[in-house]
Amino acid sequence: MDLNLKINEKNHAEIGGADTIEIAKKYGTPLYVIDEERIRSNYKRVFNAFTKYYSDFKIFYACKANTNLAIMRILEESGSCIDAVSPGEVYTSLKAGFSPERVLFTGNNVTNDELKYVNETGVRINIDSVSQLERLAKIVDPEGYKISFRVNPMVGAGHHEHCITGGEMSKFGIKENEAVEVYQIAKNMGFDPVGIHTHIGSGILDPEPFKLATNVLMDIAGKVASEADIDFEFIDFGGGLGIPYEPKENLLAIDEFAKEITGIFKTKLDKYGMGKPSMYIEPGRYIVGDASYLLTTVNTVKNSYRKFIGVDCGFNTLLRPAMYESYHHIVVANKANDELVEKVDIAGNVCESGDLFGRDRPLPEVEEGDVLAIMNTGAYSFSMASQYNSRPRPCEVLINNGECEIIREKETYEDLFNNQIVPERLKKN
Amino acid sequence: MDLNLKINEKNHAEIGGADTIEIAKKYGTPLYVIDEERIRSNYKRVFNAFTKYYSDFKIFYACKANTNLAIMRILEESGSCIDAVSPGEVYTSLKAGFSPERVLFTGNNVTNDELKYVNETGVRINIDSVSQLERLAKIVDPEGYKISFRVNPMVGAGHHEHCITGGEMSKFGIKENEAVEVYQIAKNMGFDPVGIHTHIGSGILDPEPFKLATNVLMDIAGKVASEADIDFEFIDFGGGLGIPYEPKENLLAIDEFAKEITGIFKTKLDKYGMGKPSMYIEPGRYIVGDASYLLTTVNTVKNSYRKFIGVDCGFNTLLRPAMYESYHHIVVANKANDELVEKVDIAGNVCESGDLFGRDRPLPEVEEGDVLAIMNTGAYSFSMASQYNSRPRPCEVLINNGECEIIREKETYEDLFNNQIVPERLKKN
Repeated sequence: MDLNLKINEKNHAEIGGADTIEIAKKYGTPLYVIDEERIRSNYKRVFNAFTKYYSDFKIFYACKANTNLAIMRILEESGSCIDAVSPGEVYTSLKAGFSPERVLFTGNNVTNDELKYVNETGVRINIDSVSQLERLAKIVDPEGYKISFRVNPMVGAGHHEHCITGGEMSKFGIKENEAVEVYQIAKNMGFDPVGIHTHIGSGILDPEPFKLATNVLMDIAGKVASEADIDFEFIDFGGGLGIPYEPKENLLAIDEFAKEITGIFKTKLDKYGMGKPSMYIEPGRYIVGDASYLLTTVNTVKNSYRKFIGVDCGFNTLLRPAMYESYHHIVVANKANDELVEKVDIAGNVCESGDLFGRDRPLPEVEEGDVLAIMNTGAYSFSMASQYNSRPRPCEVLINNGECEIIREKETYEDLFNNQIVPERLKKN
Repeated sequence: MDLNLKINEKNHAEIGGADTIEIAKKYGTPLYVIDEERIRSNYKRVFNAFTKYYSDFKIFYACKANTNLAIMRILEESGSCIDAVSPGEVYTSLKAGFSPERVLFTGNNVTNDELKYVNETGVRINIDSVSQLERLAKIVDPEGYKISFRVNPMVGAGHHEHCITGGEMSKFGIKENEAVEVYQIAKNMGFDPVGIHTHIGSGILDPEPFKLATNVLMDIAGKVASEADIDFEFIDFGGGLGIPYEPKENLLAIDEFAKEITGIFKTKLDKYGMGKPSMYIEPGRYIVGDASYLLTTVNTVKNSYRKFIGVDCGFNTLLRPAMYESYHHIVVANKANDELVEKVDIAGNVCESGDLFGRDRPLPEVEEGDVLAIMNTGAYSFSMASQYNSRPRPCEVLINNGECEIIREKETYEDLFNNQIVPERLKKN
């Protein structure tokens, strides 16, 4: 399988050269552990693959996947730029040391105050709606102000719909068939529209939908370039590079993928006479997703009508299985190579019937005290965590060449009351 | 309709005697507003209905619905007890001034450390599994130690399954057909099992499934009482009382409901010769659900392939629609009685295609700057909020006879970095 699982001579799952069982003992569970080297190598793999075929290429890390400042620092050191979807992500990026030129803000349903803030930071704004364009024009002097637009391609054929973010149900972007008009409106206002953006999809392991979307976006860009007379400085293909979550899935063949996508890109640039704009992509999951495990300890083995393995975290800690029915592979970290002898349900500790990390998972015989490694929890995991059921959010530990550093301390019960104020009249006498 | 919507002479939605538009102006949006009097009257309505028919009756507020300390104080003043599902909820209850005797801990997949903590507080433990019983026996001296058990009734008939939490897929409780044995085991260990608990369901507006479950639990309790020779001090029917979320739904007729449930309860007590134990129920949603609006301002009206009304919060602020496809009724708070002229999609500001508060909702003509009141957001709303997309969590305001008090201040961007530590070697030079 292509999952990022290493097992050491003690039959323990390893991450970044460190033994997960020793980490669990040292820091307690639940615990997110993150492998720094994996993030760096994931970044380099994409960067090298694309720059081999098109040198003016930039990665805008989609930081909504994981905004821990230490992770942001690793990406800053790696040379990444940032895809920020909110003013808070812009703030986080600047705090992490990114210069404003390395951040692109692509918001959805943005307020005037948020536009003012982002404008003041110097971060470039990728515009999602005509409303946003018109409101920005009242906030800034449009003359020569550089912007770009997110375009929503109309995807007619049903068999593509599930692969491509966009289409008629989507809240994002400017309608494809209005793109030329909107670029013209922006120019007439005085704006300098220098970029075009779309978002291809999410979690894609098959190059075909990407190739299709690349063709679609390049045709839209070509039409806008010629009909609205735009000289694009950049074309941004958004995110969507997937990672294998299930053992049956395979890694994206990134070099072949980059070759094909850049091939289409260059052919279309030539076809439409668009010169040599920068090519951007915005991977999030691909950069950080497989660089982390969530470690959790089994406290309860329960033979009910089904067999349940109960652990010390729940969907407040990792929401994806309960919210999206996402598959996360789970191994017994202290019995990593043991034979899989039974199918069990892995249940969290939240008081909801849907709080399960997996049903009918083949595992070795599990005992109370065993540690489970829930894999691929680097993306959309801590970033979506809540304090539901009054459970403090867990610790995050970064692994660097086998050494551990805490990058977020576990919350305490007192943290549950941050910012709360009990009115005097309600206080207990 | 039975929704808790009041409209004043300015055509503005009101809550607790306060004008939502004035509140939105004063505090900004997004904003949770909570009506204290509604919480008090909801509590009293249930309490009075049941005590009319059975005097030894207690409400254990299921605080996972909303654990804001001010809300907890209101319930403490009202005389409520607390259903706590985690050590954090026990901690919160004690901090809010509840004495330990007024709190019942019903955990799922509880660790030894958590059992130790709850035991030390003096809060009674309602046990969910044999594992938990055996581990508790090593932590405390079982001799005379009072406990209760959560039982999972096997619900055979398919047409009941969706109404009753429990059944063969559920991770909760002791299997019905092992209940007698488990009570005997507990007694043999020296424990004093004084209670029995089940959880009937969630969001139920129809008395029939409750009546069925009451019969089922009473038959189990009767069997345990006679076969394991248990003299129950209390029988706990859990939660599940619903509120109308959609205009077509009706309020539960609480008096009739209480009459029927206590009727079954008393009949079965007599049948099994169980004396006069306390009757407990654990409502959460019913107490706080309809006492709150989430106010959010429209910043974007977008005519894409569909018409989208974009607002200044997203599923990080209110998760239920995106996670459970829950319906929350939405009114334009500043046009509360205007004719509904078009069907629109109401979209949040999170960068996910599923971030919608409603599709095809009939609304008056919506303009940017309008304020929407998303109704029935008192339960499972703030308590499930996250900082996803680096969005700080919003302010909560309590309304008391038309007067507003902040009970939780809005988080700042800096709050996103609480507890984070950037290793020295990763800091920017």
